Amino acid sequence: MQLLVYLPSIASLLFCLNHLLPPVIKSWVPFSPFGPSHASAPWQDVAAEKRRRDMAKIPSEWRLPQKVIDEAGQRRSVADEFIESLLDPDSRFLTGLEVPALMEMTANGSLTAVRLTTAFCKRAAYAHQLNHNLLEIGFDSAIEQAKSLDVFREVHHRPAGPLHGLPITMKDQFHVKGMDTTMGYVGWIDSFEGNKSSERKHRDESEIVRKLRSLGAIVIAKTTLFGETNNNILGYHWNPRNQQLSSGGSSGGEGAMQALRGSALGFGSDIGGSVSMPAAFNGVFSIKPSVGRLPTLDMPNSVSMPDSKSRRFCNLPIALSPGQINIPTVAGILGPSIASLRYTMEALLFSEPWLTDPAVLPIPWRKSLEADCVGKLSFAFMDFDGVVRPHPPITRALNMVKDALQAAGHEVIPWDGPSHAQALAIHAAITSADGSYDVFEQLKLSGEPLIPQLAPDFPGSKPGPVKNAIEVEEVVLKLKKYRVDYRNYWLSTANCTMTGKSNSVSKFGPCQSLLTSSGFLGRPIDAVILPVVPSAAVIPGKLFHYDYIASANVVDYTTLVVPVTRADRSIDIPDPNYVPVGEVDKKNWEAYDAGIYHGAPAAVQVLGGRLEEEKLLAIGQVVTEALKKYYNF
Amino acid sequence: MQLLVYLPSIASLLFCLNHLLPPVIKSWVPFSPFGPSHASAPWQDVAAEKRRRDMAKIPSEWRLPQKVIDEAGQRRSVADEFIESLLDPDSRFLTGLEVPALMEMTANGSLTAVRLTTAFCKRAAYAHQLNHNLLEIGFDSAIEQAKSLDVFREVHHRPAGPLHGLPITMKDQFHVKGMDTTMGYVGWIDSFEGNKSSERKHRDESEIVRKLRSLGAIVIAKTTLFGETNNNILGYHWNPRNQQLSSGGSSGGEGAMQALRGSALGFGSDIGGSVSMPAAFNGVFSIKPSVGRLPTLDMPNSVSMPDSKSRRFCNLPIALSPGQINIPTVAGILGPSIASLRYTMEALLFSEPWLTDPAVLPIPWRKSLEADCVGKLSFAFMDFDGVVRPHPPITRALNMVKDALQAAGHEVIPWDGPSHAQALAIHAAITSADGSYDVFEQLKLSGEPLIPQLAPDFPGSKPGPVKNAIEVEEVVLKLKKYRVDYRNYWLSTANCTMTGKSNSVSKFGPCQSLLTSSGFLGRPIDAVILPVVPSAAVIPGKLFHYDYIASANVVDYTTLVVPVTRADRSIDIPDPNYVPVGEVDKKNWEAYDAGIYHGAPAAVQVLGGRLEEEKLLAIGQVVTEALKKYYNF
Repeated sequence: MQLLVYLPSIASLLFCLNHLLPPVIKSWVPFSPFGPSHASAPWQDVAAEKRRRDMAKIPSEWRLPQKVIDEAGQRRSVADEFIESLLDPDSRFLTGLEVPALMEMTANGSLTAVRLTTAFCKRAAYAHQLNHNLLEIGFDSAIEQAKSLDVFREVHHRPAGPLHGLPITMKDQFHVKGMDTTMGYVGWIDSFEGNKSSERKHRDESEIVRKLRSLGAIVIAKTTLFGETNNNILGYHWNPRNQQLSSGGSSGGEGAMQALRGSALGFGSDIGGSVSMPAAFNGVFSIKPSVGRLPTLDMPNSVSMPDSKSRRFCNLPIALSPGQINIPTVAGILGPSIASLRYTMEALLFSEPWLTDPAVLPIPWRKSLEADCVGKLSFAFMDFDGVVRPHPPITRALNMVKDALQAAGHEVIPWDGPSHAQALAIHAAITSADGSYDVFEQLKLSGEPLIPQLAPDFPGSKPGPVKNAIEVEEVVLKLKKYRVDYRNYWLSTANCTMTGKSNSVSKFGPCQSLLTSSGFLGRPIDAVILPVVPSAAVIPGKLFHYDYIASANVVDYTTLVVPVTRADRSIDIPDPNYVPVGEVDKKNWEAYDAGIYHGAPAAVQVLGGRLEEEKLLAIGQVVTEALKKYYNF
Repeated sequence: MQLLVYLPSIASLLFCLNHLLPPVIKSWVPFSPFGPSHASAPWQDVAAEKRRRDMAKIPSEWRLPQKVIDEAGQRRSVADEFIESLLDPDSRFLTGLEVPALMEMTANGSLTAVRLTTAFCKRAAYAHQLNHNLLEIGFDSAIEQAKSLDVFREVHHRPAGPLHGLPITMKDQFHVKGMDTTMGYVGWIDSFEGNKSSERKHRDESEIVRKLRSLGAIVIAKTTLFGETNNNILGYHWNPRNQQLSSGGSSGGEGAMQALRGSALGFGSDIGGSVSMPAAFNGVFSIKPSVGRLPTLDMPNSVSMPDSKSRRFCNLPIALSPGQINIPTVAGILGPSIASLRYTMEALLFSEPWLTDPAVLPIPWRKSLEADCVGKLSFAFMDFDGVVRPHPPITRALNMVKDALQAAGHEVIPWDGPSHAQALAIHAAITSADGSYDVFEQLKLSGEPLIPQLAPDFPGSKPGPVKNAIEVEEVVLKLKKYRVDYRNYWLSTANCTMTGKSNSVSKFGPCQSLLTSSGFLGRPIDAVILPVVPSAAVIPGKLFHYDYIASANVVDYTTLVVPVTRADRSIDIPDPNYVPVGEVDKKNWEAYDAGIYHGAPAAVQVLGGRLEEEKLLAIGQVVTEALKKYYNF
């Protein structure tokens, strides 16, 4: 399957002719693309040294000529054909394959782990030089691990695990042996969570990393992060598919790395869209599972460490602490296809992560939920939440999905569920309950300033007000009520779907799912199609509305991002007579610029029920196949 | 299976000769057995009127003669042969049967719902007159429902559901149509959560009640509750098997009702032993599932109601609010046998409660977990936590279980896991975070005083100090770490078990469970045998140590209570040379009085992994069968 489903119009031809950045770009770039430009200070030297050290880990034969770097700086996109044109054929071929195909090859021995790892390391090295998205590089040790895996295969005549030799990248929030974990904090460089003399420095691993390693995967590098994505080590992180736009946050480096195919798959973390937004902005697939499906043990913001003095912050746009578990952070996966996400989720659950992470639920991979999702499905559809109307590229992407699904025989009904604005208010109240004081504790370690993206949330550059337990409990009651209302609305769609018209289980049709096997209800919708955010990626500082995506975390539903098309200045023309429904809608609408957004990935969100990962991935496959078929790719 | 496994000694003979209360009792009874004895006040009139109203719901033909009541007041136990001697043979026969047998009879039509319900209502009426344990009586409507069920069966030639006509009781924390829910608050009488004019009064039902009803069950009455169990409506609640002792809290009325067999099964709620303690004290079986297995939606302390002004308090020994979900309240089941609990759990999960309660996990009943638990099992055993040594009856019960298991070929190894005292400290810090201010809001409704059992926790009879969000998060980090430590210790037992000696999955033996199917670990223990509390029931005011039982909620593991024997003054003689290890141990040891405790049920706790309800119930069956076989019943 292709990474992106392109619109079969002359737009794609135009795109090639228009890959250069318009001259306007320089005027609104808030930071130099590589490293912040503050006056010299000790923390800056530390950050600069870290950048130099990482760059030195790229072998000289993988260094790009300055000419190429310069050319890349002038381009709109450095992804797709640009990065591919720089690669040798073998690396290009291997890095273009999806996870299941690669794992079939390493399992049957037709592809060695070393060859595969080397191909991805090389492409990751190019990706970093073009896009500055790695906070840690581990190519050497990755190739060493690949060698061991090859030896294992030779001795045992079988792969070490279902992810034998799979080169992956991790958001720099996961601990990986031999590597820094900075979380974007200068004060965390060369330390264990800020403690430079800790014995655990460069030794500890997060549980999900241990599991991935036990399955045969190899972490080749760690990707940049923090709000929108910006930090004082690597600076503002640009979208590799449109360098005038943000790569999204907080897993932006991972989104970019997947767009550039610098690894076969990547891992991020999500508290309110931190996986989904970067996936959508960069035009890759992602899954944000429900809480308790993938391990989060020993992630810096997820568990207390004996020698860690305070809690850890990571996600954006809103700060939070690991002791806040009313809406917990989850690990999510970003990759080139639904099949890649599915293969990896199944492998991770095969490792029975509930044995060692007490927060993981003992729910194995349920093939029955997948197998049932064939035949006619019912989708709810929301292209406008009544608060902020998406820009034309997103509206077009949504309609493309709707048309393709209907053409494939599926049903699409309107979604008019509980207010997402209410969900966001609950989300903000819960995740800001501790005033995000921990962020400032970490900044103090090095003396670095708060990134400007966060400044508006923290007047005077100090922690916000702290709620007391009674106030927090009041919000949690709202959270619980919202979840019930959302669930009830979802169930009530059984009254609107064709599939739900009958009350008899046997007539529900082929999709027997968690939602349909009760016999007490007609069949409600299978999933909701809605925007991720109201823009195709975003001009820095111009994301005003997280409501479409943060709701998924509030109700703890599984959500997928499916890239659909690219913004096209020739067709995504805003209605000049549009009358915004409110202040935020106006700001968002005025922020649209067809010229700047041109070429930006436009994705949709596919939202499924709580803990229905298997079902939703099967539905995601249905959606992408409908798109492929309808648009004749 | 018998309700209790009696020790086959002459003690049981002695017991019959010694059923009368020793004269000492009056001197330490803090309250009259029926209703508090404060000076007259408006709230007292309301409570008295409620008591009269409830008593009036008992038909005159089911009223016990004053002579019987008087005799009962002088007896040690009013359960077992005493209450049975009062019943007609048919009622005695039917109320002596377990849930699966009863449901087979109502399903095949050999028993009508009306006959069954009438039998239990009659026995419940006797139970209340002897033990004052009902806060609401609904015999009339129960028999009406039974009639409808009989009509359904006649028309459709099948039962309405797997619980067709099952008469059950609910702790007075669940909303049931047509009934008061008081939570023990005088201010809640004739109201919806304190709001007397609410349209929802006597109309709303808690989700678990809706589910039970949909399965065919009939709620015949609601049982008394609150700390130890005491409230200002019914007063202090005595243990029906030893009227000098407490029935435990906070589901004490339900424990007593099960001991008296006034319903076929009962439901309680648990935040830190509130189901397990009453089950143990009254000598009945119970299961406290992990969070998310049974619905808690629309329980007064579990979800916000639109017209409810504040949050609700219910559990003891520690107060908490429904907005506190770091350690949430769970619903638990109390009944006459493991088979009864198992049958009901399976039926409830058959109703797919996750469809309508978003907090319920989509985990159906897993027969595979049960089927695997045959053959040799490994148990860990803890008879002393190093802090408070159990009284002789509990130590004897523990050893009886150990001996029986070993005789049946199972392995028993020592348990030396993470400190339960640490767990209790975490528990207390989390559940008291909001200062339990809500209790005082509810007391204000009527002007009733705080019950004396809670007074020591609230100096000056006002809410405790309130933590801020940062302080709460700090405790949650400890909670998360404790859970990891506990899990790791549990897994580490694979190094100590015979069954864990091999690292090969195929050699693990027959019990392939969640814990053993990974292939990465040897097989750890299957369950832990430990005390519930250090005494067999308890002399009022003398329960000093909740650590053995509250830990189960801290780690969110499933726990069963299995009654084993009865305290026996002729053999449970304390070692006069025992040197207490600390202050609490000393207080507890000194509180033991073989004469007073004589006849009190002595139970053990069987602790299983998180969300392993199916497995643990299968193990509970193994334990009870081992006891039956070894002690030759």
